[in-house]
Amino acid sequence: MKAKSIQDHYPDEYSYCYGCGRLNEKGHQIKSYPDGEEAVAHFTPQPYYIAVPGFVYGGLIASLIDCHGIGTAAIAYNRAKGNEASSDSVPRYVTASLQIDYLKPTPLGVELELRGKVLELKGRKAISQVEVFANGSLTARGTVVAVQIPDSMTNTGK
Amino acid sequence: MKAKSIQDHYPDEYSYCYGCGRLNEKGHQIKSYPDGEEAVAHFTPQPYYIAVPGFVYGGLIASLIDCHGIGTAAIAYNRAKGNEASSDSVPRYVTASLQIDYLKPTPLGVELELRGKVLELKGRKAISQVEVFANGSLTARGTVVAVQIPDSMTNTGK
Repeated sequence: MKAKSIQDHYPDEYSYCYGCGRLNEKGHQIKSYPDGEEAVAHFTPQPYYIAVPGFVYGGLIASLIDCHGIGTAAIAYNRAKGNEASSDSVPRYVTASLQIDYLKPTPLGVELELRGKVLELKGRKAISQVEVFANGSLTARGTVVAVQIPDSMTNTGK
Repeated sequence: MKAKSIQDHYPDEYSYCYGCGRLNEKGHQIKSYPDGEEAVAHFTPQPYYIAVPGFVYGGLIASLIDCHGIGTAAIAYNRAKGNEASSDSVPRYVTASLQIDYLKPTPLGVELELRGKVLELKGRKAISQVEVFANGSLTARGTVVAVQIPDSMTNTGK
């Protein structure tokens, strides 16, 4: 049986994220899985996620890197704590900053692979690096600075 | 009569961008207007653009900053050339890199204001800074490195 993604372990109240929430029916529902020392996700953009014709919209690439970077941080946190990499003990990280380099145009119409690894994990903060591949070719690289969710974001209802 | 946005001047073949293309019916259709020495855009996120309940999804904020940064660059280019700021003489920039700082959570349910200015304009490159305001409060700041569209992105059909 395939392991569940890290996002499938988020508590319901943190599962409405447009990028990766399993309960957001309109969202991307990105799913990040442990893979060796890294984390992997796959995503095929719908044809309307265009930048210019033939190529994927950069804002979508930023979204994929953001959510997979957060998932990568949560997986690394679990590993560091000696928990199952993808398990209910997941902390919910949010994004403090995001940096993306668009190395070459990303073609539309193919499945993208996102590979994430954690560069730093300390206290409530984690830094993930995510690379995006299309047809095996690296097209974008991003860095996500993640922090465990602050109290200022947990005081609202659903 | 209100001036047209810079995106309303893009040629049809560059008007399918998910973020700002007037011909992408599923997209955000962000519109950037000259405003003094700056450029301004307004956008109200739909309720499903959630990060955690009550707050706007960071990937959407990245998308808004990206497209408005590109529009800001195009407006500045026109000004530098002595053209109308928003006019058909617009060059089409694409994003080389994007950096976002999420300064505080951005509340859902209010219109966001994006204010862009150009930090550098040289040759085929421009660097824009975009700030996002909700209820008059600065919530995110981004930097967009824009380049005029390379030949590798202009060889495909629609």
